[in-house]
Amino acid sequence: MALPRRVVIVGCGFGGLFCARALKRAPLEIVVVDRNNYHLFQPLLYQVATAALGPADIAQPIRTILRNQQSSFVVLGDVDRVALTEDRIYVNGEGVSYDYLVLAPGAVDNYFGHADWAHAAPGMKAVEDATRIRSRMLLSFERAEVEMDPDNRSAQLSFVIVGGGPTGVELAGAVKELAVDVIPRDFRHADTRSARVILIEAGPRLLPTFEPSLSEKALRQLVGLGVDVRLGSPVTAIDADGVDVAGERLRSHNVIWAAGVRAAPVLQSLGSELGPGGRVKVEPDCSLPGHPNVFVIGDAAYLVDSHTGRQVPGVSQGALQMGRYVAKVIQEDLEDKRSRRDLGFHYRDLGSMATIGRFRAIAQIGRFRFSGLLAWLGWLALHITVLIGFRNRFSVLVSWIYSYVFVRRGSRLITRTGLAPDDAPIEQRKPATHPL
Amino acid sequence: MALPRRVVIVGCGFGGLFCARALKRAPLEIVVVDRNNYHLFQPLLYQVATAALGPADIAQPIRTILRNQQSSFVVLGDVDRVALTEDRIYVNGEGVSYDYLVLAPGAVDNYFGHADWAHAAPGMKAVEDATRIRSRMLLSFERAEVEMDPDNRSAQLSFVIVGGGPTGVELAGAVKELAVDVIPRDFRHADTRSARVILIEAGPRLLPTFEPSLSEKALRQLVGLGVDVRLGSPVTAIDADGVDVAGERLRSHNVIWAAGVRAAPVLQSLGSELGPGGRVKVEPDCSLPGHPNVFVIGDAAYLVDSHTGRQVPGVSQGALQMGRYVAKVIQEDLEDKRSRRDLGFHYRDLGSMATIGRFRAIAQIGRFRFSGLLAWLGWLALHITVLIGFRNRFSVLVSWIYSYVFVRRGSRLITRTGLAPDDAPIEQRKPATHPL
Repeated sequence: MALPRRVVIVGCGFGGLFCARALKRAPLEIVVVDRNNYHLFQPLLYQVATAALGPADIAQPIRTILRNQQSSFVVLGDVDRVALTEDRIYVNGEGVSYDYLVLAPGAVDNYFGHADWAHAAPGMKAVEDATRIRSRMLLSFERAEVEMDPDNRSAQLSFVIVGGGPTGVELAGAVKELAVDVIPRDFRHADTRSARVILIEAGPRLLPTFEPSLSEKALRQLVGLGVDVRLGSPVTAIDADGVDVAGERLRSHNVIWAAGVRAAPVLQSLGSELGPGGRVKVEPDCSLPGHPNVFVIGDAAYLVDSHTGRQVPGVSQGALQMGRYVAKVIQEDLEDKRSRRDLGFHYRDLGSMATIGRFRAIAQIGRFRFSGLLAWLGWLALHITVLIGFRNRFSVLVSWIYSYVFVRRGSRLITRTGLAPDDAPIEQRKPATHPL
Repeated sequence: MALPRRVVIVGCGFGGLFCARALKRAPLEIVVVDRNNYHLFQPLLYQVATAALGPADIAQPIRTILRNQQSSFVVLGDVDRVALTEDRIYVNGEGVSYDYLVLAPGAVDNYFGHADWAHAAPGMKAVEDATRIRSRMLLSFERAEVEMDPDNRSAQLSFVIVGGGPTGVELAGAVKELAVDVIPRDFRHADTRSARVILIEAGPRLLPTFEPSLSEKALRQLVGLGVDVRLGSPVTAIDADGVDVAGERLRSHNVIWAAGVRAAPVLQSLGSELGPGGRVKVEPDCSLPGHPNVFVIGDAAYLVDSHTGRQVPGVSQGALQMGRYVAKVIQEDLEDKRSRRDLGFHYRDLGSMATIGRFRAIAQIGRFRFSGLLAWLGWLALHITVLIGFRNRFSVLVSWIYSYVFVRRGSRLITRTGLAPDDAPIEQRKPATHPL
């Protein structure tokens, strides 16, 4: 009796998860390795950072998602390195061999050579990032309430978001709404309505991956909310007291980095050619050049769609579709077929959305463009539908009714973890490893 | 024009919060000082530790609760000391003067002279404690899944709870249910059903504040669930590898302390006489001897009810009633009356409940005793009703439907904060201060 072949999947974001699920009926052993015990619905992380949702609303244990898939085995751990010559990866020092390897480790914040900015301007990639940003932000309102000096108070009430992509736009809208609609009556001395939210984008327009007309609409909606949007404004310095942008000093103890990502550092151990943002250049079938049994997918992969000639974007749909595609390639491989492989991966653009605030959003789906209430309702319906797990869907629905109808935020907790005992600059994120 | 007199309330647990609310219509300025920005519904903290609820489900911002009480002013901060001679308290180094002072700082874990046990056996008083216990516990199941040595695996699957009061009993039931009912199908190698949950009580029975017949019922319900209950078993040693109890070594990396509390250390700065557990001995009107304008309430106070001759118990009802009583005393004081003062505080026992698991609980209300399903339904109804804030009530209801009907737990997140990079023993809780 031959043992089933083993597929090792590293990372259980959208790419890894959908690959694992698509292999449910295949005669394979599936090993899923992730540094967290949960799949995180990253597109809603900004709602955790702005206190609308709690972490558990957007995270579901990987084991629970895969519980009925008996061929799957979940390992909590950090991948130290990939040893291609041994067909083995090392997880917390221990070797795990594979017949097929799917690398979907995702991305980390990219400071474009300014690693020292990470200290004052944390990014938002993990649950811990979001709850820390939440604590810092809420703490600033608290400080403003007891601050007597007008300049210092205004610095406490200034929030700077660097990067005008979807994360930056959604975050800017949510922070402004928090300050203007949700909390003003909670404070006595500080006028939180006067809080400045400044969204800084180096390029000429917001949401560069969207149509220019929608970028324009998003800009107008943000300005309508009261967000101070600075286009064509590269940041030249960031420290604990604020940001330098276009020759101006913006004082702020809350700078959030949403200006870009790069592929997870573990990929450097492959010794393969890397594209922009440290992404691994893969073959049209998502495989690593020279290693047909090793695939790189999602934010970690650099792939020009051979059907369209366009780069597959670093969005959840791209990762998800790559995950499903690779699952099919592996299944065909077992049957000695290769039609999918030869065809290459083709990205189907199902549309994109960004929400700017309550009742405000933009969406492009096929040839259609939406903005305002209609786009927002579409966004709401889509996200409720695709959130993984019954409880999360219900819980998120309840939280959103609370947030949007009652204009409240249910998760306004300042927790101490991650906050430094001294002033604003918080401890730099350590390369956390689970003590497994 | 005379300025309104100022009442400073330290701590916004049940005592402080209900005192502040009862003073809503009084011609007073109310200053509420708390080290957290939220009121915590502590009786449900064990549900956060066992992944049934998220932190935001049982915490509500103090500002939001008091938002419509215009005379109230909320300060986030740690009280360094009370300067009785100056009628002033010091918060983060700054003086705040008072006309009336209500001290309701609550309690901390009491290790009865074994402070070194705190390292291996954290207690559960704050949100951060609960999420850390949750992470450690879930991590143990993960370790058991990849542990090949049977002894080590069994140590990973052993959970020891020290203390057979309500917290210990509720925690033991919830941990056992998690291991037996919720997660077994999520694991492939580890049989989480075999997890041992050991509840250790030094005294002769569980729940000593309840009637002996109910203690007996709680014991039977726990044993029915499969909890290993050890009565009359004082713990003699705790370290990172386990517990010594009655001459036996119990290996465990998950020891939780629920054996007792003592009043918050800040009270020592009063220089007043302390009773058992560091509680401040107060006058029948809850005032500090010699200081009729300073009150100590809740877990921080030691008071023998002059009407019944019995000590007011350290439960939420006691704190809540003291808070309301002191509010009335202060209001009468303003009108130069003192009938409440002269009458003294009288504790009305509205009953007690403890839940042992799904469909299992005990309750004593007046002369009535309940156990099993009826008590459990009563517990459910009561807690849903008294949870503060609309969103929390709904969100908790959804989470409980999910937990109890679908036998799942929605908050199974292993977060890194609070976990040490090395093995089981986690960093000792620092006296955290907000960088305000």
